[in-house]
Amino acid sequence: MVSLRVPALIALAVLAAFPVAAEEGMWPLAQLDDLKDAVRSAGLTLAPKEIWDPSTNSGLAGAVVSLGGCTASFVSPDGLIATNHHCAFSAVQLNSTPENNILEDGFVAANQQAELRARGTRVLVFKGWDDVTREVLAAVRADMAPADRAAAVEGRRRELVAQCDSGSVRCQVVSMFGGAGFYRFRQLELTDVRLVYVPPRGIGEFGGEVDNWMWPRHTGDFALLRAWVGPDGAPAPWATANVPYRPERYLKLAQSAPVEGEFAMILGYPGATTRYRTAAGVAEDLQSTMPRRVKLLQDLVAILEAQGRRGKDVELRLATQLKQLDNSLKKALGMLEGAGHIDLLGSKQAEERRLESWIAADPARKALWGDVVSATDAALARRAVSRERDFLLAWLPQPRATSLLGAAVAIERWTDEKSKPELDRPFEFWNREERALRQRLASMQRGLDLSTDREVLRYLLRRAVQLPAGQRVTAVDQALTATGKTGEDAITAFLDRLYAAPRLADPNVRETSFALDHAALLAQQDPWIAFAAALRRDQEAKERVDLTWDGSMLSLVPRLAAAVKAWRGTPIAPDANGTLRFTYGQLHGVSPRDGVVYTAFTRLRGVVEKHTGEAPFNVPERELEAARTSASSPYRDSRLGDVPVCFLSSNDITGGNSGSPIMNSSGELIGLAFDSTWEGITADYRYDAAIGRTINVDVRYLQWVLDSVEHAGHLLRELRQVRGNR
Amino acid sequence: MVSLRVPALIALAVLAAFPVAAEEGMWPLAQLDDLKDAVRSAGLTLAPKEIWDPSTNSGLAGAVVSLGGCTASFVSPDGLIATNHHCAFSAVQLNSTPENNILEDGFVAANQQAELRARGTRVLVFKGWDDVTREVLAAVRADMAPADRAAAVEGRRRELVAQCDSGSVRCQVVSMFGGAGFYRFRQLELTDVRLVYVPPRGIGEFGGEVDNWMWPRHTGDFALLRAWVGPDGAPAPWATANVPYRPERYLKLAQSAPVEGEFAMILGYPGATTRYRTAAGVAEDLQSTMPRRVKLLQDLVAILEAQGRRGKDVELRLATQLKQLDNSLKKALGMLEGAGHIDLLGSKQAEERRLESWIAADPARKALWGDVVSATDAALARRAVSRERDFLLAWLPQPRATSLLGAAVAIERWTDEKSKPELDRPFEFWNREERALRQRLASMQRGLDLSTDREVLRYLLRRAVQLPAGQRVTAVDQALTATGKTGEDAITAFLDRLYAAPRLADPNVRETSFALDHAALLAQQDPWIAFAAALRRDQEAKERVDLTWDGSMLSLVPRLAAAVKAWRGTPIAPDANGTLRFTYGQLHGVSPRDGVVYTAFTRLRGVVEKHTGEAPFNVPERELEAARTSASSPYRDSRLGDVPVCFLSSNDITGGNSGSPIMNSSGELIGLAFDSTWEGITADYRYDAAIGRTINVDVRYLQWVLDSVEHAGHLLRELRQVRGNR
Repeated sequence: MVSLRVPALIALAVLAAFPVAAEEGMWPLAQLDDLKDAVRSAGLTLAPKEIWDPSTNSGLAGAVVSLGGCTASFVSPDGLIATNHHCAFSAVQLNSTPENNILEDGFVAANQQAELRARGTRVLVFKGWDDVTREVLAAVRADMAPADRAAAVEGRRRELVAQCDSGSVRCQVVSMFGGAGFYRFRQLELTDVRLVYVPPRGIGEFGGEVDNWMWPRHTGDFALLRAWVGPDGAPAPWATANVPYRPERYLKLAQSAPVEGEFAMILGYPGATTRYRTAAGVAEDLQSTMPRRVKLLQDLVAILEAQGRRGKDVELRLATQLKQLDNSLKKALGMLEGAGHIDLLGSKQAEERRLESWIAADPARKALWGDVVSATDAALARRAVSRERDFLLAWLPQPRATSLLGAAVAIERWTDEKSKPELDRPFEFWNREERALRQRLASMQRGLDLSTDREVLRYLLRRAVQLPAGQRVTAVDQALTATGKTGEDAITAFLDRLYAAPRLADPNVRETSFALDHAALLAQQDPWIAFAAALRRDQEAKERVDLTWDGSMLSLVPRLAAAVKAWRGTPIAPDANGTLRFTYGQLHGVSPRDGVVYTAFTRLRGVVEKHTGEAPFNVPERELEAARTSASSPYRDSRLGDVPVCFLSSNDITGGNSGSPIMNSSGELIGLAFDSTWEGITADYRYDAAIGRTINVDVRYLQWVLDSVEHAGHLLRELRQVRGNR
Repeated sequence: MVSLRVPALIALAVLAAFPVAAEEGMWPLAQLDDLKDAVRSAGLTLAPKEIWDPSTNSGLAGAVVSLGGCTASFVSPDGLIATNHHCAFSAVQLNSTPENNILEDGFVAANQQAELRARGTRVLVFKGWDDVTREVLAAVRADMAPADRAAAVEGRRRELVAQCDSGSVRCQVVSMFGGAGFYRFRQLELTDVRLVYVPPRGIGEFGGEVDNWMWPRHTGDFALLRAWVGPDGAPAPWATANVPYRPERYLKLAQSAPVEGEFAMILGYPGATTRYRTAAGVAEDLQSTMPRRVKLLQDLVAILEAQGRRGKDVELRLATQLKQLDNSLKKALGMLEGAGHIDLLGSKQAEERRLESWIAADPARKALWGDVVSATDAALARRAVSRERDFLLAWLPQPRATSLLGAAVAIERWTDEKSKPELDRPFEFWNREERALRQRLASMQRGLDLSTDREVLRYLLRRAVQLPAGQRVTAVDQALTATGKTGEDAITAFLDRLYAAPRLADPNVRETSFALDHAALLAQQDPWIAFAAALRRDQEAKERVDLTWDGSMLSLVPRLAAAVKAWRGTPIAPDANGTLRFTYGQLHGVSPRDGVVYTAFTRLRGVVEKHTGEAPFNVPERELEAARTSASSPYRDSRLGDVPVCFLSSNDITGGNSGSPIMNSSGELIGLAFDSTWEGITADYRYDAAIGRTINVDVRYLQWVLDSVEHAGHLLRELRQVRGNR
């Protein structure tokens, strides 16, 4: 463990001062070598090179894939992929019809030909990285103004990606520690992905929103996909002639039962953490950003719920959008509650005071880092002057607020950006994104309800009207003024104009508009496109201002991280940024509060206990029947006296890790990570192994369900072929 | 343990069939000898005779007292008594004033002279019993009609009590197993009771309604009283010349720290259980009685809450009444939830089917018990025809519904009954109850709010109007008809008449009315008294009908219990009936559901965790300060690493056991029982040691609070004098 390197007294002092536990850290694979003693002490029997060997670009991590927002892993030589049910949710929804509702009833492909296209799903196979820090920083001169520095770095990132992208290999250049280092990651993109197995919603979503973020958990949050490629083995779009992809690496299922206290590691794609935020930044988040976010989410949820009461069809149409908003709201509320519970701000402030004292105590440190906290806070204060406006400007074009405005903004900008050289465009408008953008514009139809869309936009416009002077959204002000009316009348008039006959509500119009050039699009004088173009002027003005902030952070965050690292005297991990990370810990229960202990494992009997027959506690009758004879199941754990369902581990993960493989000390698959506990929800700011836990679904539950509930022997054999006969 | 006597295979079968656990049973002391092997195996080192020796009428149980609805125990040679804070609640409230609010702030008597009168509190010291089964049953002839049988038994009970009552010795004759046996208990009544120590509400009621019935628990639910007597040592009313009572027995505090798994026993006064109810009786309770009760309680709570919003003074006035109603409601809801969770009805039905098969399998058994279930159910069905009316008739005169009608009913009946010979009166109208009745009529003033009282009575009258034909309350029908109006107008007119100038709202009028003879009272033509007299005609008509039911049960319940006993082949305990019982078990945590374990002990750190500064999680600042230095406290438990607060045990208790001493295998005091867990709330019907737990407050927490929070060294010394210097 990391802190084993620290002399015992210091370690104790550090733990007492702020309980950063041994397992903290979502480590880039480039740091694996720094950790080799720690992970060996913790129980890992593999050498770091077996996880990933940069010299050969191979290793266990080759089995781990990104689904974009979720993680997954290859689990058979024929491209079978295991991930969470909730990561396959939208693909499952797209394949569901009232007559064949696989979202409710589940789906087992009887053979490979019966597998269903998972539209909108792509698989990104890890292929390695190179350190491009020198190349990026070569573009930066010390005397550059912050905005110029940010622009120079961004330009160099684009060049480095363009040089690397090739065929189906997609590259990205990301910063570590806010700009201390830059890595270029390579991923192979596979776009023919198919649904192989989806459990019934009563298993895959068992417990639903009630149990979301909670322990004890009994969710069978698993699904199986398969990647397909052209007959030549090369990535290819969906085609009947395609064949299953044969990955270089795939994970084997664990051969022995994991036990409490055992080593466990996770490889996955955590999205974002904020562990190097200053105390002032944390204060702003907790006292301003998060409450603002909660208010908006609560209001949007209320609008959607009210609209959903218009009818069952509307309710179903809004279900996915509402689920996303609810989940964000629940996380934000949990964050605020958790922050209060552990006094996050107070402990961050105390930690920062200690850090600053330590810096101040030595002239050399003072010279290096004496101003880093105050300079960061000053930049933060400058940025705060437009926070209200920036917040709203970020929400207005979001498809999860109003899908029509989201579509208009995407189409308007895409048609403009596509005429430019790629190096002049932000990454999200590169040609390689065209397919995903088109897909989004097509699939939004399923969730579109004009009345709800209008009420959400009305809400956002009202919020815009209430913005303080100096923080106005010009596009909104101009649009409302143009109605010739004032106040609520102006909003209504503008909405009447937009929603009178919204052409973009037609998927064909969206598709043809997307293909137009920008001038032709504008010439159509669609009010939506005109509003989107106006909003872009606000947006681009903001982006120009942001360059100064970005440039300041490019120098400040690396300095702050360097100070923290020197102060702690141990390796530290950079914040999550959507790239592949390694985290290790143990299988462990936890005491969430005095008098209560969460056990490390839940069991099949707990599913039966919770089952009420009504969603979200509604497993199929055939599972209840199978449970009655589970005592003789080979997936029964004799220590637990039952088939295991989910388990807790002390790994450090966050959003994006969903579907990640959790492996034992030999690198065998023991489960899939799918959630964090409510008590550990503040880990994005500060991980505390005394309270934070990852929630995983046990692969033995997957196997038991495939065997005893689904009778899908062919899938079990495919999963187990590497294990011989059991 | 009881089931150790059963061959292992049978025990397993029984446990599998219906999980009646080893610890089930609230045992009359008369059965202690039957249990001697079982309790010795379980760990008790005392001989049954040391708990109570009928030949000398002495033993540990002599230290255990009833407070009427609560239990307590002597804990010093000078009559110091330990019980729950909630058992002293009303006495504490009566001693609280806005200027000296001891309910909120607590109270420590600096010395004996400073102790406060606990008006309305009496202490009943256990003095033994004799078996009067033969004497009672001698009054019964086999050919008697059921009603005559019931009347004969009741008459004999009164004679036996009258023969026994003497001075301050109060007797009662109670049936066991519904009439299989009759015991006459003797208690010494002490009426000068004083408050010695009351913790601040933030300790004594920490967690309040939120934590009520819940684990983990951190409530310091303790208080100390003292019994005083005349200078001659004989019971006497309060007087300045009185001296502390010197009990024959008192409990010593445990000298060693209790540990999980350790033997524990409780002596106390459980009120009522219903374990020999037939499945049809349970079905009626769950499907009809309890939902009806829940509905009424919810409606009353809503009325009181709405009225409470009129102002802070009204809210305070209604606080105690609301707390009682809320507690009843929470218990009823928990019972329904728990019954569903454990399938109480299904398991009762299955158990009954097995019992009936066993009876039917043998001609001798069939002759004895073949009809007992069906005959009981037939009697139940006959009674069910007036359930709606009986339910309302029971609620109308309850002081916890409307205190004015409660007072009118009590005064009207008392003035009539008191003119009769005692043997012709129900026990509750014997002269010995006069003091308590007067006290109640005086103290009701504190909770009386006329507007609320009127709204509650309006609600009950509306319910009476809705009763089906054949189940009418004649008194209500006549009163409403007499208004000359119909429907809601009649109710309003009747209420207008009652509440125009209610004389009984004046405590002096209640006192003088209570002293009048019945004719003089009626001559006053008070509309309340007239309504009470009319209601009594309904009530007495019901009592006459009930005699038939009572008489049937007097023969059926003993037969059913005998069948169950023969079937189980082990000693069985009679239902609780408010008399002294012994229950044994262990200190044990419990898993309330898969994935969660409740630990056996809670700790001081849990109090600090829960403390928010707002009621009900609001310990005094001085407790938080003391907690900071608790690591060096002599009351710290080294295994727990903290001062213990509450603990769980598998003892079988119910309402009335509050304040009961829980003792180790040597009979030393380790805590005070004060609640059951939510999960075990169905124990009144079926005790299950796998889920049911008693919640106790640890005597070490009491001592830590007295020492470190209250600095009440004199009380600590009195509690510890038997332990030598620690």
